[in-house]
Amino acid sequence: MSSENHLPIGYSFSAVKCGLKKNAYDLALVRSDEKCSVVGLYTRNKLVAAPVLYCKANDKNPIEAIIVNSKNANAATGKAGYKAIEIITTALAKELGCKASNILMSSTGVIGEPLPKEKILDSLPQLVSSLSSKSENNAAEAIRTTDKYVKTVYKTLKIGNKEGRFFAMAKGAGMIHPNMATMLVYIFTDIAIEKPAMKLAFTNAIESTLNRISVDGDTSTNDTAMLFSNAMLGNKPIKKSDTLFSKFCTTLESICLDIAKMIVADGEGATKTISIHIKNANDKKSAFEIAKTIATSNLVKTAFYGCDANWGRILTAAGRANAVFDPSKATLTLNGFSIYKKGKLPKVDTTKLEESMQKENQNIILDCGSDKKYEDKYYFSDLSHEYVSVNSAYRT
Amino acid sequence: MSSENHLPIGYSFSAVKCGLKKNAYDLALVRSDEKCSVVGLYTRNKLVAAPVLYCKANDKNPIEAIIVNSKNANAATGKAGYKAIEIITTALAKELGCKASNILMSSTGVIGEPLPKEKILDSLPQLVSSLSSKSENNAAEAIRTTDKYVKTVYKTLKIGNKEGRFFAMAKGAGMIHPNMATMLVYIFTDIAIEKPAMKLAFTNAIESTLNRISVDGDTSTNDTAMLFSNAMLGNKPIKKSDTLFSKFCTTLESICLDIAKMIVADGEGATKTISIHIKNANDKKSAFEIAKTIATSNLVKTAFYGCDANWGRILTAAGRANAVFDPSKATLTLNGFSIYKKGKLPKVDTTKLEESMQKENQNIILDCGSDKKYEDKYYFSDLSHEYVSVNSAYRT
Repeated sequence: MSSENHLPIGYSFSAVKCGLKKNAYDLALVRSDEKCSVVGLYTRNKLVAAPVLYCKANDKNPIEAIIVNSKNANAATGKAGYKAIEIITTALAKELGCKASNILMSSTGVIGEPLPKEKILDSLPQLVSSLSSKSENNAAEAIRTTDKYVKTVYKTLKIGNKEGRFFAMAKGAGMIHPNMATMLVYIFTDIAIEKPAMKLAFTNAIESTLNRISVDGDTSTNDTAMLFSNAMLGNKPIKKSDTLFSKFCTTLESICLDIAKMIVADGEGATKTISIHIKNANDKKSAFEIAKTIATSNLVKTAFYGCDANWGRILTAAGRANAVFDPSKATLTLNGFSIYKKGKLPKVDTTKLEESMQKENQNIILDCGSDKKYEDKYYFSDLSHEYVSVNSAYRT
Repeated sequence: MSSENHLPIGYSFSAVKCGLKKNAYDLALVRSDEKCSVVGLYTRNKLVAAPVLYCKANDKNPIEAIIVNSKNANAATGKAGYKAIEIITTALAKELGCKASNILMSSTGVIGEPLPKEKILDSLPQLVSSLSSKSENNAAEAIRTTDKYVKTVYKTLKIGNKEGRFFAMAKGAGMIHPNMATMLVYIFTDIAIEKPAMKLAFTNAIESTLNRISVDGDTSTNDTAMLFSNAMLGNKPIKKSDTLFSKFCTTLESICLDIAKMIVADGEGATKTISIHIKNANDKKSAFEIAKTIATSNLVKTAFYGCDANWGRILTAAGRANAVFDPSKATLTLNGFSIYKKGKLPKVDTTKLEESMQKENQNIILDCGSDKKYEDKYYFSDLSHEYVSVNSAYRT
């Protein structure tokens, strides 16, 4: 079955090489035949990129298209950056025969350089003329920056006797840290759903997935996650009170989790994906803070890169988290090996443990040993020589 | 003038190779002829190493000696770790002819391995018999872990017609982040000073120096900074109300700043020392948080390593700090080049700017442009391939 069959009804895609990257797709367009409801979640960084400001101002409108460029973030570019977007969306609206206010725009790439808007403007006719329901991979390709591979997800959901569809495309490999969206993620569906239900479903799905990953602890200026619904499946719009709503939520969450794991696996320089499960924490915030602190510790991350079972660093990171944590009650398990138990050091087959650390997927369980049952999960990548290489020469 | 002349009166030093490291000094002893007042500042990590617990319980006693081992942190070692210290200090007390409660102990190195106390016990007679007023460099050598060089500071202070002296030794290169002491630092003086004055002087000195540096954002389990005074200069003890007190404070702060800068310059894998000056912040906490967030951003640190003037990352880090910050009012200066001015991008000679980034000392000034005048300073190292190498194979 070709991927085309999996696409939701009414969406078309295109990508062009407009010259921001060196001979690679760098400008993507997604258009819907019917106007969409959109829920957008954005960065909490105070340095908000111009396209995020633009989307925040326009995402309540009925949306017909979104245009995304890579290689330049249009961030820290002040009023000139915002003006550039207005010029581009106005020109694109003419090509599409709609209003500029029906179009959204995102950017990703280097911060603090003026957006080369002429290159984008010159490419709009070609971008629009090549729209097709077979080009979603080119579009996904065009939004990549340091991503090693294209990130797409296709899912379906039974709605009565019809099949609703989702297509998601995302980019993200560096400057990845939980704070709302933490990357560019676009999810398109043909399923009709009421706006409040759509909002709740998306916010919840993001919280347990895209807000629980870390590559390098830095939060982007351009983070954006958007859910588009064009309702072209023709179902009765889903309400929060419908039994279908929880199925919609589950499907959406599984899409977001797939993306989250793809982003961590493709973390800049990553050789491993490490999952961490905090159990029996004293409170919700403590569970989250302990997981986050471990996931962002450079010492933990380098130890995993080196396949070094230097687990003391995991416990040390937990100890400095802004959380309730008592090491004398805690139990630490690494890849199934019990290595620290309430202040005691169980005998461990170190050779076997370090062998297990060669694997691509690593697993930490930290039981905080409180009488409360709060838990959290987190996914992160290791810190390698390659990360330093990628980021010390990012603009060259 | 030999360093011996600079040592404060009454202190003797020794170091032995007890077998924790491979054929290198790994156990240090400092003894004072007269018992000392001690002020100790310790890690705020909840995973507190046994020696820190021991020092906290004993540093109010009159102190005659401190023993320090490297290569093993005696952390996450539970009650057995604490018991090991009691056995060692009891044995050392017999050798020195004092009580165990007059002795302090510190450890630094790998977390989560039992302290090989027999090696230390076996070496005590040799350690005590080699005490001398010429061996301070051996002692400073023995407390090193990944430090590339020994860190010592000698200073004097005129007290009437006498010359009071300070000697400081420190270790620290990784797991360096502000949270009280952030490394092992021992400062010895012969100047008599009242305990409350001593405490205030030391706390203030640490706050603006050792609490303002970052190598990798991780806080150790064993952080300890101690000021010892044996009062053997014979001066009238300095009070807070004395004019001499502010001179004592200034001297102590300059010692701590010297150590702070040495530690950053010797940061694991560091090729550069970057100083950051936050100006005109909205409040004290915002100034600190913005400085800290920039200093701990892997993306900022790798850009400095790569001599890449990717200054957008500096502003982005400021934007995600837990602080009041308005990018449209901010002005950023890098090595004297004005590169961002209230949302506008001044013309910069990029070649000259990137040339300046080759230098060992880098300088960031971020003016937040608020009408308040709060400021802060911070020192940090870059993130290099070597950092990853050092930390991915730390235990091997």
